Formats: sequence, C-alpha cells, structure tokens
Amino acid sequence: MADQYAQTRGDNRPAGIPVIRWEEPPEGPVVVLLDQTRLPAEEMELVCTDAPALVEAIRALAVRGAPLLGIAGAYGVALAAARGFDVDDAATALAGARPTAVNLSVGVRRAQSAHQAALAKTGDSRQAASAALAAARQLHQEDARASDRMAEHGLALLDELQSGGGHRILTHCNTGSLVSGGEGTAFAVALAAHRAGRLRRLWVDETRPLFQGARLTAYEAARNDLPYTLLTDNAAGSLFAAGEVDAVLIGADRIAADGSVANKVGSYPLAVLARYHHVPFIVVAPVTTVDLGTPDAASIEVEQRPGYEVTDIVAPQVPVMGGGGGIPVAPLGTPAYNPAFDVTPPELVTAIVTEEGTVSPVTAKGLAELCSRSRQPTVD
Amino acid sequence: MADQYAQTRGDNRPAGIPVIRWEEPPEGPVVVLLDQTRLPAEEMELVCTDAPALVEAIRALAVRGAPLLGIAGAYGVALAAARGFDVDDAATALAGARPTAVNLSVGVRRAQSAHQAALAKTGDSRQAASAALAAARQLHQEDARASDRMAEHGLALLDELQSGGGHRILTHCNTGSLVSGGEGTAFAVALAAHRAGRLRRLWVDETRPLFQGARLTAYEAARNDLPYTLLTDNAAGSLFAAGEVDAVLIGADRIAADGSVANKVGSYPLAVLARYHHVPFIVVAPVTTVDLGTPDAASIEVEQRPGYEVTDIVAPQVPVMGGGGGIPVAPLGTPAYNPAFDVTPPELVTAIVTEEGTVSPVTAKGLAELCSRSRQPTVD
Repeated sequence: MADQYAQTRGDNRPAGIPVIRWEEPPEGPVVVLLDQTRLPAEEMELVCTDAPALVEAIRALAVRGAPLLGIAGAYGVALAAARGFDVDDAATALAGARPTAVNLSVGVRRAQSAHQAALAKTGDSRQAASAALAAARQLHQEDARASDRMAEHGLALLDELQSGGGHRILTHCNTGSLVSGGEGTAFAVALAAHRAGRLRRLWVDETRPLFQGARLTAYEAARNDLPYTLLTDNAAGSLFAAGEVDAVLIGADRIAADGSVANKVGSYPLAVLARYHHVPFIVVAPVTTVDLGTPDAASIEVEQRPGYEVTDIVAPQVPVMGGGGGIPVAPLGTPAYNPAFDVTPPELVTAIVTEEGTVSPVTAKGLAELCSRSRQPTVD
Repeated sequence: MADQYAQTRGDNRPAGIPVIRWEEPPEGPVVVLLDQTRLPAEEMELVCTDAPALVEAIRALAVRGAPLLGIAGAYGVALAAARGFDVDDAATALAGARPTAVNLSVGVRRAQSAHQAALAKTGDSRQAASAALAAARQLHQEDARASDRMAEHGLALLDELQSGGGHRILTHCNTGSLVSGGEGTAFAVALAAHRAGRLRRLWVDETRPLFQGARLTAYEAARNDLPYTLLTDNAAGSLFAAGEVDAVLIGADRIAADGSVANKVGSYPLAVLARYHHVPFIVVAPVTTVDLGTPDAASIEVEQRPGYEVTDIVAPQVPVMGGGGGIPVAPLGTPAYNPAFDVTPPELVTAIVTEEGTVSPVTAKGLAELCSRSRQPTVD
C-alpha cells in the first residue's frame, strides 16, 4: 500500500498491475482483474476462473467503465470456451451483468460470433475457443489504439475551441486507463493536453455515490502528475459561475442513434450547467459505444442500484458496519433514489469525439456516418 | 440511540432535546446545544460555559443553520455578560466565527446593543446582562413565530404556483427545526404542505460534503412521517428531466440587497437546473437573512472549508482514521476545492419567502420594501 505512488509507470497503466489480463497457469486459463473497488487504498487482483465469477466482478464494479467492460465480456466468453463451459449461457449471463453500457454486450457478441464461426467451420471446440480468445485480444488491442486516436481528436478539438492558453477541464467519474485497453476516453484527452503542456487544471468531480472521481480519477491524475483538484459534484456550479471551466469532458456508457448520451449520474446536470455558461460539453467514447439499435433517450435502460450506496458510505477504506456493507449516514430505513446513470440529450452535447473522428453538431446523420466509417468487427 | 425515533415530538423539536437552550445551574449560566455533528446516530448535548466554547461549537458545526446561528450568537453575548467576561470581545469572536451567515452577526449585535443600552442607562452590569439575555430570548421567540409565518406564506405560494394536486419538492441541506427557534425555513413549508395533505414527495439532496441532507433533513423528515426520498446531489438532474420536481425550496445564509442568495454549496446548480426545466426555485428565509449592507453577489464572502471534508469521509458514524478526522477516500495529498456556499443570482430565484411576505419577482426594490415592513429590533 505504502508504495503505490512510488511505482513507475511502465505501460500506460496507472499501476504496475494491468487492469485486465488473460493468463494460462497450469490449473487452466483465468481472467485476472485489478480490483477497482479497493483503489486507491490497495492494488489487489481478482482471479476469475469462470464466467459467473466475472459476472460477479462486473456487478460489484471490480471491473468497470464502458470500453473495459467490452473487453472483459469478450475475455469472459473466451474463458467459458477455454474451460469447456456452455459458451452461449456464459455470453447471456455476461451481456446481462449490467444493462446500460452497450460495449459489454458488443464485446460479448464479438467473441461469441468468433467462437460460433470457428466451430461451424472446423467443428473443433479447441479451435473455436482459440478464435474467441483471439477476438478478445484483438478487441483489447483495438481499444488501446482507439484511446490514442480519441486523445488526438479530442485535443485538436479543445485547441480549436480555445486556441492559445491552457485548458481548464472539468471531468466526472473515471475515464482513464482503468476503463480501457489504453489510456481511456475523456481522461486520455486531458492527459494528451497535459503532455502537450496545455492542461492548466483538471477539475475532478468526486462522483457520488461510489466516488469514482475521488478514488480512481484522482489516483490516475496523481500518478500522471496532472495539475488536478478534487471537488464535490455540487461544487461544480461555483466553478462555472466563476469562469473557471473551459470545457467539460466525459465518457459515455451508451450513445443512442439520435446522439443521446447515457453516462454516470451527474453528467446531465453538468451538461445543463455547461449550456447555461456557454462552456463546451464534450463526450469522448469509442465508436462501439454508439448503439444504432437504440433510437433515443427513452430506449436507454438506466440501471437502478441499491439504496444503501446512498444511505451508507461505501468505499474500500470504509469498515463494514451497515447492512449494505458501509457506514450508515442517513437514519435507518431511509428510502433512496439511486440511478447509476443519466441521459444527456444531443442538443446539450457540443461534440462527440471517437477514434474515427468528431461529430459536431451531434446529429443522427453525423453519428451514422461515423459508425459506417468504422470497420466492422472481424471474426478471426 | 435505539429509541431516537420512538421519542414523541412534544415541542416542534425533531428530538425531545431542544436544539439550543439557556440554563442556570448553581455553577453559573450555560448555553446547552444539541450537538448536530453527531446526528442522526446520537442525540448528545454540548454545554458551553463561555463564549469561546460556543465559538468552537459554531466553527465545528455542532450548531448551524442561519437563523439558529443568530440565536446562538445572541445567547453567547448574554453568556459572556452573565459570567462577567468582556462582552465586546465575546461579540467580536462570536460574530466572526463563520463569515457567510449574516444572521450570526445580526443576533450578536442585537444582544450586544441591548447590553450596551442597559449599561449606559443603569450603570449596572447585572441589569445589562439581564437585558442581553432578554434580547436573546426575544430573538429566539420571534424566530419561532417567523417559522410559522414563512410556512404559511410558502405554502400559499406553492398552492398558487401549482393549484390542486400534491407538491413534489426538492430541497438541499437542512432547513428544519434544527436550524431555527421554530420549525425552520424551507423545511417548515414542506411540513406545512404535508400537514395540509398536499405533500406528494420531499426529495432530499444528501448535501455533500457534510451530508446535512442525509443526516439531518432525513432525520427530521422521518420523525415527521413525511414521504421523503434521499438522493445524491448529482441525481437531482434526472429527477428534473423526468418531470418529478414541482418546486425547489431552499434556505439562505445571506441575501444581498440585489436579491443574490448565498446558500449551501449545490444550491446554485439546482437553480440553473430549475430554470432549464421551468421549475420554480424558491428561497425561504427570515427577514434577518436579508443584508441590505451587502449590495450584491460579489460582496458576499464565501467560506472556504478544509479540503479533508472532501478527500476524507467525515460523518458522525465514521471512525476517525485520516488526518482530518475521517476516512480517506482520495489518494493522500489530493488537493480539494471546498467552498461551503455558492451564490444564486436574483434572476434565477422565482421568489423569496419571508415571515413578512413574499417577494416575486426578486428585485432590490421589493426586498427593501419588505425589510422596511419588518419591525426594527428593540433593545429591551
């Protein structure tokens, strides 16, 4: 624990430990995850030997973030295949582990299709399992490359919106290398700005109820020596009013065909504040986050999470006391409203930045064009 | 602890224990406070034997809320006088204990003026001390009556803005009988709506970083059997978007002459959300909160509080672990921005409700008229 900040950054990971990796010890293949629920206090690994364990890790948010969920889903399918479990059952369970991030089911389907195609072609389950693993690995690599391209496009957009001078960026939740095969989405743009010497300040929303900003974004910002400051989500208003925010940069869990953006709860109020203060509101996400099968905001299922996340304090450093695994703050029996996400309509989004380019203004046509530019997933 | 909800409500207090009272045991007079930092887990009293102890209690938020701070300040002056300390020194220390709530210095000055006038008239320090105490008691009683009138005016306004049907009210921070000599400000209006059978839902913002909503408003709502639901501050956006909020009701710590409202951080973003969604944003505060000596938003000093309130979890149920007295959530050394208040400009405020009536639209002229209607403090 004590040396967590002393570790050198060798591979664009915030820690020496990769957020996800495939291993093949003598006991059989496993998916190894950096347990994000324990950050920043501890860097511990979770070893998943089957798909149900991975489903549980996804539900518990040990692994999280839209792009990374897609990679995890694909490896989960490969794991079921390699271990000889029913691949379709595993795929169904994995895809349904969390409802909002579209990348999860996209990643699952990609490995599942590769498996099916290889099985149909060769009739050999070992070859089919290899094909599923190859598809997962390819997705993983593509995602890393996508991060780099999003960072490039995002920084170009920032520079265009505000030429000269450093950028003061407000971000919400966690969108760095903990959510991706690469350096992330919105955070990767801030990091690129920092490396180019053009990041004046990264304002980090703490992101209640699970503190992904305070725990994870602050951790990634500290490790990368970014000039950053943490704030409660509700203090963002004062920053806007004081003219201290040049742009809002967030990720996305699902982008509907009309450009409606589902992201961590608290994103929508930032979009309204940004509009009121004439500040650009920029969404950074890989093309896989765009779901042309979801027409609009009304079609996006928003995950409702347990009330104890709000009534109790649930964080890795917090000793377990309450029924929900945290410290009760509200009186016992207090009912809570706890949506994990909210939806920002396209008219409040200045731009959507993907690895294939930027859509601005955000229109259904622009998004569809961008998606068609993206190459289709291959099955081997 | 276990029976905190079982206690009957005898005197409009959320607990059997009054939030503030003057006592005269044989050892000498004291001001006794319900220690609000320990709610809802424990109902404990703090006994202050001198003004410095009261200053410390104010700084630590054991006693808080604009109207109650005024009462506490007045009792503090009376305490210094009764115990034979230098009254002007005590008054200066008390008035400066927290900078934003104007009621604190108003209450202090009122008892101090009463003390000075009596001393000048009689030359007798005991009579002067009695006059200070009488002024504090009068302020206390007036504040209780003011709550009732604010509740009346506020409910009338709600009914006018939305006739028929129950009200779904969103509130922030804590504004009930824990902040007042009576039933409070914004919360008193919700309570009146509930008693009239016209409260459909009280949405309670948890109010980071110190959880006054989760700890105190939920506690008062539960004790009064209100239909209430707790949410993280950043989840309010989804409620507005879903059309689940009919009005926002908040208190105020200082209202400038132009109608700018300083209140708990997170109020301003609610005002922007309310405007964007065409929802009334209503401020409920006694006339003493209006400070005609503060011309506008720029003249309001906003208290900046320690960063550990954001980087650590600080709540009564949380064991002391970090340097700041809480559990560290962010990485060590994380810098934080932690303003206690924000300022909402008058153009975003639908109405200001006081015990003397309602100002809507909010203009400097309307506020000045309302203040002149209020009777001037008397000195005996």
